[in-house]
Amino acid sequence: MDERIRKHAQIIADWSTEIKEGDHVIIRAHPSAYELVLALYKEIGARKAKPLTLMSSNEANRAYMLEHGDGFQTPDHLIKLVEASDVFISIRGDDNMASMAEVPGSLVSSYARANKPLMELLTDMRVSLTQFPTPSQAQFAGMSLEEYQNFVWDSIIRDWQEVHDMQELLREKLADADEVCVQGPDTELYLSVKGMKPINSDGKHNLPSGEVYVAPSPEKTEGKIYFDLPVVRSGREIHGVRLEFEGGEVVDHSSDTHQDLLTSILDTDDGARRLGELGIGTNRNIDRFTRNMLFDEKMGDTVHLALGYAVPKSVGDGLKGNKSAIHVDIIKDMKKGKLTFDGETIMENGSYFWE
Amino acid sequence: MDERIRKHAQIIADWSTEIKEGDHVIIRAHPSAYELVLALYKEIGARKAKPLTLMSSNEANRAYMLEHGDGFQTPDHLIKLVEASDVFISIRGDDNMASMAEVPGSLVSSYARANKPLMELLTDMRVSLTQFPTPSQAQFAGMSLEEYQNFVWDSIIRDWQEVHDMQELLREKLADADEVCVQGPDTELYLSVKGMKPINSDGKHNLPSGEVYVAPSPEKTEGKIYFDLPVVRSGREIHGVRLEFEGGEVVDHSSDTHQDLLTSILDTDDGARRLGELGIGTNRNIDRFTRNMLFDEKMGDTVHLALGYAVPKSVGDGLKGNKSAIHVDIIKDMKKGKLTFDGETIMENGSYFWE
Repeated sequence: MDERIRKHAQIIADWSTEIKEGDHVIIRAHPSAYELVLALYKEIGARKAKPLTLMSSNEANRAYMLEHGDGFQTPDHLIKLVEASDVFISIRGDDNMASMAEVPGSLVSSYARANKPLMELLTDMRVSLTQFPTPSQAQFAGMSLEEYQNFVWDSIIRDWQEVHDMQELLREKLADADEVCVQGPDTELYLSVKGMKPINSDGKHNLPSGEVYVAPSPEKTEGKIYFDLPVVRSGREIHGVRLEFEGGEVVDHSSDTHQDLLTSILDTDDGARRLGELGIGTNRNIDRFTRNMLFDEKMGDTVHLALGYAVPKSVGDGLKGNKSAIHVDIIKDMKKGKLTFDGETIMENGSYFWE
Repeated sequence: MDERIRKHAQIIADWSTEIKEGDHVIIRAHPSAYELVLALYKEIGARKAKPLTLMSSNEANRAYMLEHGDGFQTPDHLIKLVEASDVFISIRGDDNMASMAEVPGSLVSSYARANKPLMELLTDMRVSLTQFPTPSQAQFAGMSLEEYQNFVWDSIIRDWQEVHDMQELLREKLADADEVCVQGPDTELYLSVKGMKPINSDGKHNLPSGEVYVAPSPEKTEGKIYFDLPVVRSGREIHGVRLEFEGGEVVDHSSDTHQDLLTSILDTDDGARRLGELGIGTNRNIDRFTRNMLFDEKMGDTVHLALGYAVPKSVGDGLKGNKSAIHVDIIKDMKKGKLTFDGETIMENGSYFWE
């Protein structure tokens, strides 16, 4: 077994989920991620906790959903299992990223609604969402397996305490700031984060991580922004997204490709035209776009904005966070841009200034 | 996908577990059995039931057990899951039959004790124990994968209603019998089954099946028996077992190989020297010994005796079934032998006489 799989498992067990004696642990993994499951059983055994593994498979879900049709019910046995557990480790890594291509979106939504009680339970648990490098995911990222393995493990196997400490300085600055400004080509955007609660995302929930994020005021974003990196939705890439805001709302938009898809995202509901998140990526081992948001939004020298839903814990006490059924992250490369908090330069042309 | 995997899944869903709308279904499978899991998701979707799959892996269990050491606790989350479920489908088929070789027996026993509440829950559920033909299991059986696939699916894909009806005649004869006699080379054994409750094993729990079994009186077996087929324990084969009974107890024993292992089995506890089961195999598609008791004990033209524990439902009301921590089946080829119930010939030299 690649020694990096052992290290990956140790980081999950020690840092991300802090597994201790007697913990009831659930792992969820596709068979393609089997080696990481094996490594986790060793770590869980060493900590005298109790593991079980749910096999996840989009190919199985596809077969199930298409035969079942609409009207999915909540899987109560799964709910009982999760209620009785302390730790949930979800490993991404399938053998075919297109397994769900044939399943109508309405069916996927109906299935997701039936499983919503599960998602709600997970918010109160020690959860780690991570990635195992599989050939299909490497293909999706446009890399050989070996190159992709290096990419994934370089971004995951880090000193997360050090990352935490580095990001904590950024989080404190953001917590003290009123106005955030993003500048660059075709870009001058002002967001209000006054009183909001920035979060230091340091590998405790997402692995890899490496970002500080916050809910901006949904009513105060002004100006325009050009996003260098594409939005990937349902296998399609929307390139060259441009948004213009007034009073927090997108009042104009365009893109170089798939503009109809961008429009339909913005038309989802009232909250879909307002921002739910400003994120600042700091993980410089994630040095390229791989069409995988678990990695992309943490790229060093980037910021991202999310249209839609605001994570409640990033909203300030007594303040309003944005509501929406969607949460669509769009990433901007800051190697040709400048990020300021109340006029103080934080990131500019590929340099960090808060460290 | 091999069309026989689809048929296998349909037999599990329709005949073995009778899956219906709203059922909470657990599948337990090694990643090597992934295709059967896929086929089951389709069948479960068609019946509007709710599936989840537990990944089983002896390689993972080995890593866990060795690191953990003794003192295993019951996995309460797994118990809650099973309590909330209706159907349990356990698929055998690993990628390495020797994965547990390094794990001390004491550790395996300790782990089994911690998981005993699970086994007890399963007795009240609709359970199917079946086999997926994997390369490692084919290797263990001494066949190519293709030959082994033919063997497994020929024995599983049958008209089980027809098997049930054919065996029902045998079950009724056995229910009416007082004395069973097994004769053959070096063999003349008398068992009392008076008042006991024979079971028609027709694919509802074990798949494949094809046997009628009963608990004999633990105190009335007399005579001697020679077993043509070996007992496989911990990877070792005990060939040429000979047992001699007086008053239901083994008073003399020998074997051509590993006699020390046979002795240690008999010395396990008081019940280990008495019989818990007489089984009559009727599945003629299982035409050879494959060192896999799920198949071997159902071979057509065989009988088997089990030292140790008697399945309670096969014990007559108000009668005593044998108790023991073990249940070791030993098989006798009846192609050179004769089975009689109260003097009536039931099986002789490769022919059935009850049909």
